[in-house]
Amino acid sequence: MQKPVDFVNGIKIETLQETVHAIENEPELGKCMFRAHNKWLSGNHNCTTITGFYGAKQEMSHKQQFELHADEPPILAGNDEGANPVEHLLNALAACVTTSMVAHAAVRGIHIEELESELEGDIDLRGFLGLSNDVPRGFTDIRVKFKVKADVENMERLKRLTEFSPVYNTITHGARVHIQVEEK
Amino acid sequence: MQKPVDFVNGIKIETLQETVHAIENEPELGKCMFRAHNKWLSGNHNCTTITGFYGAKQEMSHKQQFELHADEPPILAGNDEGANPVEHLLNALAACVTTSMVAHAAVRGIHIEELESELEGDIDLRGFLGLSNDVPRGFTDIRVKFKVKADVENMERLKRLTEFSPVYNTITHGARVHIQVEEK
Repeated sequence: MQKPVDFVNGIKIETLQETVHAIENEPELGKCMFRAHNKWLSGNHNCTTITGFYGAKQEMSHKQQFELHADEPPILAGNDEGANPVEHLLNALAACVTTSMVAHAAVRGIHIEELESELEGDIDLRGFLGLSNDVPRGFTDIRVKFKVKADVENMERLKRLTEFSPVYNTITHGARVHIQVEEK
Repeated sequence: MQKPVDFVNGIKIETLQETVHAIENEPELGKCMFRAHNKWLSGNHNCTTITGFYGAKQEMSHKQQFELHADEPPILAGNDEGANPVEHLLNALAACVTTSMVAHAAVRGIHIEELESELEGDIDLRGFLGLSNDVPRGFTDIRVKFKVKADVENMERLKRLTEFSPVYNTITHGARVHIQVEEK
């Protein structure tokens, strides 16, 4: 008798399946609120702190606090103390599409040996600088190229799994962003 | 005679104005490509490396290489080795809206003493997990609350400046994302 597989692609399948079954039985458990706190340091340098989130009907803490610095390179009047905000967005997209592909492959029994990606996104600074109202202010096109070491017959399936990614969906479909500015 | 102001909000106004004038005279200089390289480590853990970008008609290097780790918390079958991808997206948004507000305020002579923000984004995991096709897979709503120490009469102006943010515009208007998966 074959021993059941505990881990596929480094993911404990049992944990993932338990989460799936729990949410199937009680959809309310799937509602999450993710959070970030940002503090401006000076100029283009600011720092985000991430400590916890709401999910499974309760407040959850991360094992450790995460600090993420953003800045701009000198040509954009910064000191390069961190990746710039649009590079952070590419990181979020890369991380999310990768995780989505690996996790969804794992539950389908598709083994991945190696996985890398190169991202490239186009922005015309005339939009951000307010030099033209006709130029979009955000990314127009982002290209993601994955190189994956897995059964060649699974390439098309793996590509389709990227469509589960929350960040991919947020960027391609958009989200509502509500901004409030108050005196401190 | 008053000495000209070199720095406002920690930003060297001259550098920013030089960039603006250069792009006004030669729009091609405003076209940028930002880049990221991601490598899957195991399970939900992956790492992005950021080294350089294309702008001002040339390849540019950052002063240092940036590494950004992403993982998931234990409840989502990870080990919490980094913020998760959707938290990274909130970081990108916080950093970008902050930078946009500070820089555009600087060129308008609006002084900011302190600036902090709290972000909160809603995701229903049923979308990501493929439990329902009716549930969006990405963020639906993101709330950003700024607390700013500046002249109270400038609050509304500062709020409007957030609309220049490239990440804010990418998330609210969307971008095209082209994904390619190749055998390694």
